[in-house]
Amino acid sequence: MRLASLLGPELKQILKEDPDQVRALLEEIHPEDLADLIGELEPDEAAELLARMPAEDAAPIFERLEEDEQEEIAELMPPASVAQIASEMAPDDRADLFSVLPEAMGDAILRQLDRVDPEAADDVRQIEKWPSTSAGHLMTTAYVYVGPEVTVAAAIEAVRAHAENHKENVYNIYAIDPNDKLIGIASLRDLLLAKTYQPLADILRSNVISVKPDEDQEEVARKMAKYDLNVVPVVDENGLILGVITIDDIVDVLTLEQTEDVQRLGGIEPLDMPYFRTSFLSFIKKRGVWLFVLFFGEFFTQTALRHYDPVFEAIKGSAYYVPLLISAGGNSGSQSSTLIIRGMAVGEIKLSDWWRILVREAAMGLILGIGLAIVGFGRVLMYPEQHSDFAATVALTLIGIVMTGCTVGAMLPILLKRAGLDPATSSTPFIASLVDVLGIVIFVHIAKVVMSNVLAGAH
Amino acid sequence: MRLASLLGPELKQILKEDPDQVRALLEEIHPEDLADLIGELEPDEAAELLARMPAEDAAPIFERLEEDEQEEIAELMPPASVAQIASEMAPDDRADLFSVLPEAMGDAILRQLDRVDPEAADDVRQIEKWPSTSAGHLMTTAYVYVGPEVTVAAAIEAVRAHAENHKENVYNIYAIDPNDKLIGIASLRDLLLAKTYQPLADILRSNVISVKPDEDQEEVARKMAKYDLNVVPVVDENGLILGVITIDDIVDVLTLEQTEDVQRLGGIEPLDMPYFRTSFLSFIKKRGVWLFVLFFGEFFTQTALRHYDPVFEAIKGSAYYVPLLISAGGNSGSQSSTLIIRGMAVGEIKLSDWWRILVREAAMGLILGIGLAIVGFGRVLMYPEQHSDFAATVALTLIGIVMTGCTVGAMLPILLKRAGLDPATSSTPFIASLVDVLGIVIFVHIAKVVMSNVLAGAH
Repeated sequence: MRLASLLGPELKQILKEDPDQVRALLEEIHPEDLADLIGELEPDEAAELLARMPAEDAAPIFERLEEDEQEEIAELMPPASVAQIASEMAPDDRADLFSVLPEAMGDAILRQLDRVDPEAADDVRQIEKWPSTSAGHLMTTAYVYVGPEVTVAAAIEAVRAHAENHKENVYNIYAIDPNDKLIGIASLRDLLLAKTYQPLADILRSNVISVKPDEDQEEVARKMAKYDLNVVPVVDENGLILGVITIDDIVDVLTLEQTEDVQRLGGIEPLDMPYFRTSFLSFIKKRGVWLFVLFFGEFFTQTALRHYDPVFEAIKGSAYYVPLLISAGGNSGSQSSTLIIRGMAVGEIKLSDWWRILVREAAMGLILGIGLAIVGFGRVLMYPEQHSDFAATVALTLIGIVMTGCTVGAMLPILLKRAGLDPATSSTPFIASLVDVLGIVIFVHIAKVVMSNVLAGAH
Repeated sequence: MRLASLLGPELKQILKEDPDQVRALLEEIHPEDLADLIGELEPDEAAELLARMPAEDAAPIFERLEEDEQEEIAELMPPASVAQIASEMAPDDRADLFSVLPEAMGDAILRQLDRVDPEAADDVRQIEKWPSTSAGHLMTTAYVYVGPEVTVAAAIEAVRAHAENHKENVYNIYAIDPNDKLIGIASLRDLLLAKTYQPLADILRSNVISVKPDEDQEEVARKMAKYDLNVVPVVDENGLILGVITIDDIVDVLTLEQTEDVQRLGGIEPLDMPYFRTSFLSFIKKRGVWLFVLFFGEFFTQTALRHYDPVFEAIKGSAYYVPLLISAGGNSGSQSSTLIIRGMAVGEIKLSDWWRILVREAAMGLILGIGLAIVGFGRVLMYPEQHSDFAATVALTLIGIVMTGCTVGAMLPILLKRAGLDPATSSTPFIASLVDVLGIVIFVHIAKVVMSNVLAGAH
């Protein structure tokens, strides 16, 4: 940010006078920082600059722009220029660009790309056919492959030839048969350690960890993290290699998925963009929907309280304990749902564990509830007008409410996942609202039993 | 898991009969999966097996065990065996082991390591002196370095020599002067593309992105994600290279830090271990502390309601609206705090943005509050016994409460961060409790103004 504001005006000047200067700049400044700078220009200025640069210089900058910036800027450039830049982009970033663009624009640019670089256009179509959060959509088709019969020297030469055409670092070489079936894998380290005249087959590892193209990106992330992989091949059910996924994309996936989970937990529909780039209207929609749902849900607290009016009338001051009591349920429920949602997200907890969790959470609710009950009992007796039977009611209610909070909070995400929904939808505010109503019902029913003498005439 | 239960007994049998078999197994099964298997054995069985294996086979398995498993098993092995295994571990995993072990045991093993592999023992001391969540603690001292005056061929030979002694893949070579000062960097790709007789200096890149040893690991993760780095050098204030951090450790850091953030947001002290490995007692402590803090906080709702008793008495049925009204504040506050906490965690929001955020959240609270107010107004009038002045009170209260929720929820994480605390401490339940009390005060004061005729005689 600071770099951008310092260099912004100067950069604009340099680029206006001589767009070829970008090449010199690219040697000094990381393309990521140049993308930050370009992103701060007006879209029409950015479009003009990028269109004037040689495509191979523009590509590393363009592919690092934010998605919404890419869309805005691409709209202002001739489709042929965008196609030129796209042909120089990494295959996965290129496919991402096309999933960002409006369909008509994307089609127009893809037709241009067919002329400039038909292979690149095919790659886009290959990657685009997979769902947007699948391994297939995340993969790049730029990987080094050779036949298994070559020597180590030839394999190294293949890496060298690949590196001349691709900017990314290379870590592995894939041995495939004539039908693209993956036979084995060797790392650059393996190649360097082998004798150059050795057959590659000697050093190939065949127990390759791979992912399927329709596997969810979160599952891919988990696998790569578990096995400390920097690259993982995407292999279909027939053993054919379709592409590879690199760890830098996985880091982005992890951050993005995490942001979505956190926002859902906070009772917000996930935003598509950072806080300051999200429009006011979009915020109103994404927050409003849950705020209204929860508000309607909380109507039931008022309905329940009104329904039990005779009870609250008969026990003077009892209504004033309601927020205190129901919030204890909401808080313990939030804790449980958070633990289970996160446990499922990182793969520690499986659906089949539900029974163990239920027992554990019920026991935890009992202990925590007893703890709060002791404090609550004392609190009620601090007021001389309250009797010990009301204190007992409050204490027993706390135990019941905290147990309810823990079990409902823990089971709801599991049920949601079981139903194929995102468990994080059972957000903290959602659990709290649900438990609020249950809490009132528990309170009244315990009061009816414990204080039956006081309530003899009541509802 | 399934693999473990299938192979467990068989594996145990194999290993008992012939521990050398592990070498064959390691070629078939990923060490990660073997670690899963060993982790399911009884600690004494695991200790016996690992002690009987050649150290170089045991190391890749041992370094992949969970931290608590490492500790448990190391306790049951002779310090000399652990030192042998440690000498074969990757330097960063080795340092991690010593930060897991109780100090006395760690010292005993380190003394053994001094004999077996004094260089490795020095590395541990180098890494251990940095704080546990800093770049220095995360780095490995295994990286390839050469003088800047060598040829490309010599650099490739250095990579080869390094690869012979280290199991990790190599991505970059670091050119350093005789004082360890970092001069430049070349990737393996750069080396392969250059002519072997070229001086390395020709292809060195000098604009190296690096991190400082005392930089926080989250900052390191952000930098590596931003610049798509697989490895980043750790360089001190004098430009000396101390080690490198690889992306696989960063993926683990991201997952761990995110789990901690989510747990804090859910009102739980972060757990040190997965759900099922956390002891019941530890849960009670980590949940109980916040449950009690929040419970004491909610006492104020009861105190406030009791204090304003005359107002609630005068407006029949008004107390029954309290949970509905205050939950709207809690929900909107949770949304705002979640947005700001996550925005700060991913670096989108800075402390200096507070003013823009305050204005934005207040405006958002106003619009969302008006939306809920319209619904709330209609809801009150559905009851024939309520008058429009009470409906107006509810509507205005909703606007005030939602605006309070949004602004308090957004500002509190910023204030916490400003004070050097973790912003995620302003968890969803914490914001809800705070806004609950404020909500009651707002309700009563608006009622006093709008319904002054009804309340003429009241408090």
